[in-house]
Amino acid sequence: MPFQPPQRYQSPHLPFGDRRDAPFYGKHILSVRQFQRDDLAYIFGVAHEMREMVLRIGAFDLLKGKILANLFYEPSTRTAASFVAAMERLGGSVIAINEVRYSSVTKGESLPDTVRTLEAYADVIVLRHPQEGAAALAARYARKPIINAGDGTGEHPTQALLDLFTIREELGTIDGLTITMLGDLRYGRTVHSLARLLSRYRVKINYVSPPVLRMPRDIVRELEAKGIPQAEYTTLDPVLAETDVLYVTRVQKERFEDPALYDRVKDAYVITPEVMARAKDRMILMHPFPRVYEITMDVDQDPRAAYFRQMEYGLYVRMALLAMVLGKA
Amino acid sequence: MPFQPPQRYQSPHLPFGDRRDAPFYGKHILSVRQFQRDDLAYIFGVAHEMREMVLRIGAFDLLKGKILANLFYEPSTRTAASFVAAMERLGGSVIAINEVRYSSVTKGESLPDTVRTLEAYADVIVLRHPQEGAAALAARYARKPIINAGDGTGEHPTQALLDLFTIREELGTIDGLTITMLGDLRYGRTVHSLARLLSRYRVKINYVSPPVLRMPRDIVRELEAKGIPQAEYTTLDPVLAETDVLYVTRVQKERFEDPALYDRVKDAYVITPEVMARAKDRMILMHPFPRVYEITMDVDQDPRAAYFRQMEYGLYVRMALLAMVLGKA
Amino acid sequence: MPFQPPQRYQSPHLPFGDRRDAPFYGKHILSVRQFQRDDLAYIFGVAHEMREMVLRIGAFDLLKGKILANLFYEPSTRTAASFVAAMERLGGSVIAINEVRYSSVTKGESLPDTVRTLEAYADVIVLRHPQEGAAALAARYARKPIINAGDGTGEHPTQALLDLFTIREELGTIDGLTITMLGDLRYGRTVHSLARLLSRYRVKINYVSPPVLRMPRDIVRELEAKGIPQAEYTTLDPVLAETDVLYVTRVQKERFEDPALYDRVKDAYVITPEVMARAKDRMILMHPFPRVYEITMDVDQDPRAAYFRQMEYGLYVRMALLAMVLGKA
Repeated sequence: MPFQPPQRYQSPHLPFGDRRDAPFYGKHILSVRQFQRDDLAYIFGVAHEMREMVLRIGAFDLLKGKILANLFYEPSTRTAASFVAAMERLGGSVIAINEVRYSSVTKGESLPDTVRTLEAYADVIVLRHPQEGAAALAARYARKPIINAGDGTGEHPTQALLDLFTIREELGTIDGLTITMLGDLRYGRTVHSLARLLSRYRVKINYVSPPVLRMPRDIVRELEAKGIPQAEYTTLDPVLAETDVLYVTRVQKERFEDPALYDRVKDAYVITPEVMARAKDRMILMHPFPRVYEITMDVDQDPRAAYFRQMEYGLYVRMALLAMVLGKA
Repeated sequence: MPFQPPQRYQSPHLPFGDRRDAPFYGKHILSVRQFQRDDLAYIFGVAHEMREMVLRIGAFDLLKGKILANLFYEPSTRTAASFVAAMERLGGSVIAINEVRYSSVTKGESLPDTVRTLEAYADVIVLRHPQEGAAALAARYARKPIINAGDGTGEHPTQALLDLFTIREELGTIDGLTITMLGDLRYGRTVHSLARLLSRYRVKINYVSPPVLRMPRDIVRELEAKGIPQAEYTTLDPVLAETDVLYVTRVQKERFEDPALYDRVKDAYVITPEVMARAKDRMILMHPFPRVYEITMDVDQDPRAAYFRQMEYGLYVRMALLAMVLGKA
Repeated sequence: MPFQPPQRYQSPHLPFGDRRDAPFYGKHILSVRQFQRDDLAYIFGVAHEMREMVLRIGAFDLLKGKILANLFYEPSTRTAASFVAAMERLGGSVIAINEVRYSSVTKGESLPDTVRTLEAYADVIVLRHPQEGAAALAARYARKPIINAGDGTGEHPTQALLDLFTIREELGTIDGLTITMLGDLRYGRTVHSLARLLSRYRVKINYVSPPVLRMPRDIVRELEAKGIPQAEYTTLDPVLAETDVLYVTRVQKERFEDPALYDRVKDAYVITPEVMARAKDRMILMHPFPRVYEITMDVDQDPRAAYFRQMEYGLYVRMALLAMVLGKA
């Protein structure tokens, strides 16, 4: 029989008070596909509690003594900062690794080795990586929970969760709403994941985009199979009045083979106070940010402009996920 | 009437125990111009308390649960590290954003959007930016306090405050002192701000510089209008013996059209033990750092060399400012 | 008599509860040469306690209120992350300075000035620097403890300590073991330091390397003088069966003048399951990491593969050192 190191080496720090029966304890967060409607209700319930706690006391010590390794292979200030804040508001600490391009990992070290190194130091790993499938690969080797913070053209599940949580908190419910997605629906990772998550609810979805930037057919068919009413448009006008949630993404010039075509269409996808004047009184305007010109700054004062609150909801969702995978929620 | 999101969304985390009646609570720190003599006395009183606490117990939990976003658009290790330490010695946490050049904000995101993103996560924002006016622009949009940590050729108020606090702590008072500023007085942002702050006191100021690097006329006139005695020299000799505070800045070669002129004058602005031998027994030598050659290393052992202590005073001043704007001092 | 600033300026924060009689309190950790066998026993005893604590409760507040400045002049993600985690698991805080190349220190500031700046903010400084002797230079000027985290071709004492601690924890003892070092023994800083530390014990050491990458003669002679049995080989076969610790390092192509020679020899230094099948049942396989091809990934599941546990031991050793130099162990 080969040499067996002492058993306790295998599972190093399992502090007292972990609720191992809790859903998602020790689980990876890799894809929106892993969440059924029950799961979403649970996550949003915890996120709502987090929000109440932050509003009341700012921060608390639920994850005191826990360490997050924030492993970013490509820069994403917003997402990285949001996870740092989430961990710190829960009393935990962070190892920030933002310079992967300069570090040993670019000198040929494999992602599995890097992940197994970091889990020697940390309790949970948040991973941002330019390649699709990176989070799943990391999870295959990790003993500690991996949270996917975006893997290339793949998934960005915490963004989709925060988008959905924003709708729930702002409008009280998701069932029965009409959601209109606007802009680049072809390459926009966030709208793909959001559409998939919305298919767990009774919603109507409108897609408004230039023809070359339509929502991919496989996603449309996937939602069709679930009985979600969907409709496609090239302008916002026909659906603006019925829209409860207007989700805006940027139309980027480099997506067009013919730049002249870009110049002709882009203004149709810019939200101004004039556009908002024709929208419902009770609706919200969302954007995954960064925003460049696609929502003008004079819209920011409109109470329906929810995009800055959306980031705050992201904080609560990430607090919930961290607490959940660490068995503390 | 347009849709109103629940009121509490507007002002997220106002924890218990905030002293909202405290001066500077929720205020931005943008410019030395905002501080009257009373304000300075108040700030220095708090900074002195911070110093006493650090000397006695190292750190304490005054800002536990609070988060600082340290937003540096250009590197400044010293200032960034000082704010991180200040927040940590008060029990708070930090989101460090040092890589703005690689992040989404350089992909076209405006400073107001970045600031409004970060305030969704943090309680206070320290901003370093290469453009004059950046801090004021950020403050126009921010709901949370902005602390200006240097905006280009504009202001660097916390540096000026720590310079003044150093003088007060080392010499017991500011009134009645003779301050001599040496070196590059034309481009040196720190000496401009310090001169303005000193004008709140009864001091005499000497300016010693090459003719091309004289103190700007508008500052000289501003102090003249306040009755501050000022005199200009090209060498230190005439004023060394009367100087209580010698504030040295670097004369940089690139400021001279004629490099030969630089080589001819630079040695006149270097502090050596020989120079110090002719200074008062009770005086202090200051420098905003980094220092290259303008104070030789064999001066460091001189008890009058206050520049390393100056950095420690910077820690206390920044602790005071953070506690004040967060309503805890 | 020259002006004396108040005495307390000289030694700023010495909180209550420091055990100044503790060994290593306030000491620098610069070189393996400073550790006698007694010292090693003491360090490993503290590291073992740290391990027990982490296994039991994850983190604790021994260094609460203490600040580590993690000053990395060259990137080393693994070492930096390990020190951050060590400080955070002890309840302390970190100022991370990873971007020295962009900061003022590259604008001509000397290492002594940078160190004296940081000690105005922090309680202990971990220094990684590309130049041999940098840590000793820093220590000459610092009032606070310096921990050498690698200085070029010089020392990396905490790596050697964690290597030795790994052997002790995994195999229960060091005396009586046969240690085989494999690969590049000429340029590998880690094997040099480890060999020196091992010479404090009763061990047998085998060196297995291509002839051009042999262990340097001065180290061999140094160990000879201490009566350590040593033997050199070019293949692993003759010593594999007697080996208790197999320490693998990478053979890099760029070390060979003749690339064809590299291609001919490199496979002889790769560890596969087939190699492990011929090793003892009770032995361990170590590697300082990063690993590229020199241990194949199908060895990772072997319980004798200790390299991921090795990183965890590194955490405990660094926790011990931080606690010790800060007078808390």
